[in-house]
Amino acid sequence: MSTGHPGRAPAQDGATELPGFHAVIPAGGSGTRLWPLSRRSSPKFLHDLTGSGRSLLQDTVHRLTPLCADRLTVVTGALHEAAVRDSLADLDGTDGLRAEVLVEPSPLDSMPAIGLAAATLERHDPDVVIGSFAADHVVRDTEHFHACVREAVAVAQDGALVTLGITPTYPATGYGYIRLGAPWPSTAATRARRAEMFVEKPDLAAAQHYLAQGDHLWNAGMFVVRASVLLDLLADLGNPELAAGLREIAADPGQLERIWPTLPRLAIDHAVAEPAAAQGRVAVVPADFGWDDVGDFASLAAVLQESADHPGMRILGANDLVLSKDSTGVVAAGGGRTVVTLGIPDVVVIDTPDAILVTTRERVQDVKSVVESLRRGGREDLT
Amino acid sequence: MSTGHPGRAPAQDGATELPGFHAVIPAGGSGTRLWPLSRRSSPKFLHDLTGSGRSLLQDTVHRLTPLCADRLTVVTGALHEAAVRDSLADLDGTDGLRAEVLVEPSPLDSMPAIGLAAATLERHDPDVVIGSFAADHVVRDTEHFHACVREAVAVAQDGALVTLGITPTYPATGYGYIRLGAPWPSTAATRARRAEMFVEKPDLAAAQHYLAQGDHLWNAGMFVVRASVLLDLLADLGNPELAAGLREIAADPGQLERIWPTLPRLAIDHAVAEPAAAQGRVAVVPADFGWDDVGDFASLAAVLQESADHPGMRILGANDLVLSKDSTGVVAAGGGRTVVTLGIPDVVVIDTPDAILVTTRERVQDVKSVVESLRRGGREDLT
Repeated sequence: MSTGHPGRAPAQDGATELPGFHAVIPAGGSGTRLWPLSRRSSPKFLHDLTGSGRSLLQDTVHRLTPLCADRLTVVTGALHEAAVRDSLADLDGTDGLRAEVLVEPSPLDSMPAIGLAAATLERHDPDVVIGSFAADHVVRDTEHFHACVREAVAVAQDGALVTLGITPTYPATGYGYIRLGAPWPSTAATRARRAEMFVEKPDLAAAQHYLAQGDHLWNAGMFVVRASVLLDLLADLGNPELAAGLREIAADPGQLERIWPTLPRLAIDHAVAEPAAAQGRVAVVPADFGWDDVGDFASLAAVLQESADHPGMRILGANDLVLSKDSTGVVAAGGGRTVVTLGIPDVVVIDTPDAILVTTRERVQDVKSVVESLRRGGREDLT
Repeated sequence: MSTGHPGRAPAQDGATELPGFHAVIPAGGSGTRLWPLSRRSSPKFLHDLTGSGRSLLQDTVHRLTPLCADRLTVVTGALHEAAVRDSLADLDGTDGLRAEVLVEPSPLDSMPAIGLAAATLERHDPDVVIGSFAADHVVRDTEHFHACVREAVAVAQDGALVTLGITPTYPATGYGYIRLGAPWPSTAATRARRAEMFVEKPDLAAAQHYLAQGDHLWNAGMFVVRASVLLDLLADLGNPELAAGLREIAADPGQLERIWPTLPRLAIDHAVAEPAAAQGRVAVVPADFGWDDVGDFASLAAVLQESADHPGMRILGANDLVLSKDSTGVVAAGGGRTVVTLGIPDVVVIDTPDAILVTTRERVQDVKSVVESLRRGGREDLT
């Protein structure tokens, strides 16, 4: 356990602060495939999905502060501002983190969110290197994560857009991929390679081919780049108005409410990463730190420890509320009541105070359709 | 809906009271295989398991009162006396039924329970014919039930021990059987046959053979007999002390607490029905009124209507709390929260305020082992 202010505490792996590096955490998305755990009003990043005792947002902050101290900005929607501020104030072992919280007046997509942080930070330090990391992903090996970010920052300081690409461990069809190119020419000693292109989520055959060839990494949406380079790329690659609008807000934050609604909805991958890669301007640092986006219950099961009492069963919540007989899978006991599973392999039981989901691992992708059905049926209150 | 006092209301099928007939309802057993719906503190007979709006006990009373008016005795344990009295007072459309409630100081088995009622009733009317029907079974065709009981009473008035045998509809391995013998010689016009023997629960091959041959009926534990004949048979067939003890209590109810603990634990089948059948003294009236003992969740599913909104799904409780996608089976929504099932065939989800069971139809017999595990694990409070 760290003590004192987390921004000042050295990481246990001896990571030291990276001068001129500022972490950006976009905290958005409702995690629909994790319903009924995750809701619009209580999205995934506010939940402890790993049993760490901290929310995914808090885990993300803890992971980054050894590198950035309190140079950390969370970008979130108006609906979640209060919960995000509470999360930051409630970081264990600290008196709270003096991180900045930027509030989007309405949800657009990742490009305006990260771009707002980039423009704001660029005003204070034209040379700042930002690293953007989603608030709701899981990283197992923090030490290796720190090493990869350090490497990415060094490459980014030369002017590149750098991403961390995750070495695949199975033929995932739920992630996008990055095709590895030649070694990256850099002044820094680095394993970085050229990111030849970003590839959409593949079918199983293609994913198996990628895995066998070893020349594709998972796109985890982690970008490290000078703030000014990011905004210039955005302008150069077809969205000069968006770049200008973001810089205008940064120059006069009082204009946020006026300008924001005029900005386009854009994902950073489409707006910048893909076209920049096509021009040979994106570097990728291969990373192998046990990453998961915890996007569905199969993924949740993978990040949870197997229960000591119930082999093959992974339990989120109070272990003593679960009795599992001849069952494997995942149970979230979040309703305060006892959950018994009997004779179902790969079962998924998610208990919450007002809703229970019972399905199997095979169908976790279809949880989204349940949420849609509930909304169509007038039960938005449950979603 | 009947109005007025149920004991006075004629049955809708025109059933008329059977003079000299007194109904006995043993209300015991905790229905372990229906956990967590059924508990020791809240046994099966107190639950509405059919969606009728009445408990099984209340349904049983409603079924019998057209024949017996208020000549009806419920025998139950001390733990459930208050709930049974509340149930009788709360019969819909009535001011309550003036039925007698006999309270066993401790649970023995069916013979002492039914025998206590028989001895008590014999004191008031030495010629009384009693009919004993469990408090927690389901009968679909009340009219046919009334006809069968009338026939059984007529045969019992001649001095026979009469049982109703249910025509099997599938090769059940969970029920005992009755082997049909020759037509019963009776002064009454009757379809009754000699009950050649009572057969224990068979294996599947034997059950299939019984079904194909058509010479075996299900033993539903329904007995119609003169009270005096039952007690004399009990005495003649090896338990004279039990018969004497029960008659002693009936003569002086103040002796109940003293004598009851000295009585043996005995099932009526073993104590009387089986040995009497061996002596040719048991008649069986074939019955086909849609009987079910609702002994487990597969059986519960069979007595529930299929949901109009969710084909293949049977719902106990509020239909609007259940969303079923690509699932069949049974859901009991008794916890007040929404239950969603996604992609599980033959699923069983039983939600209650403090416990949820998730299993499949195939494993419903093993629910008993769950209850045993909970008790061993110190969670008697849940059972």
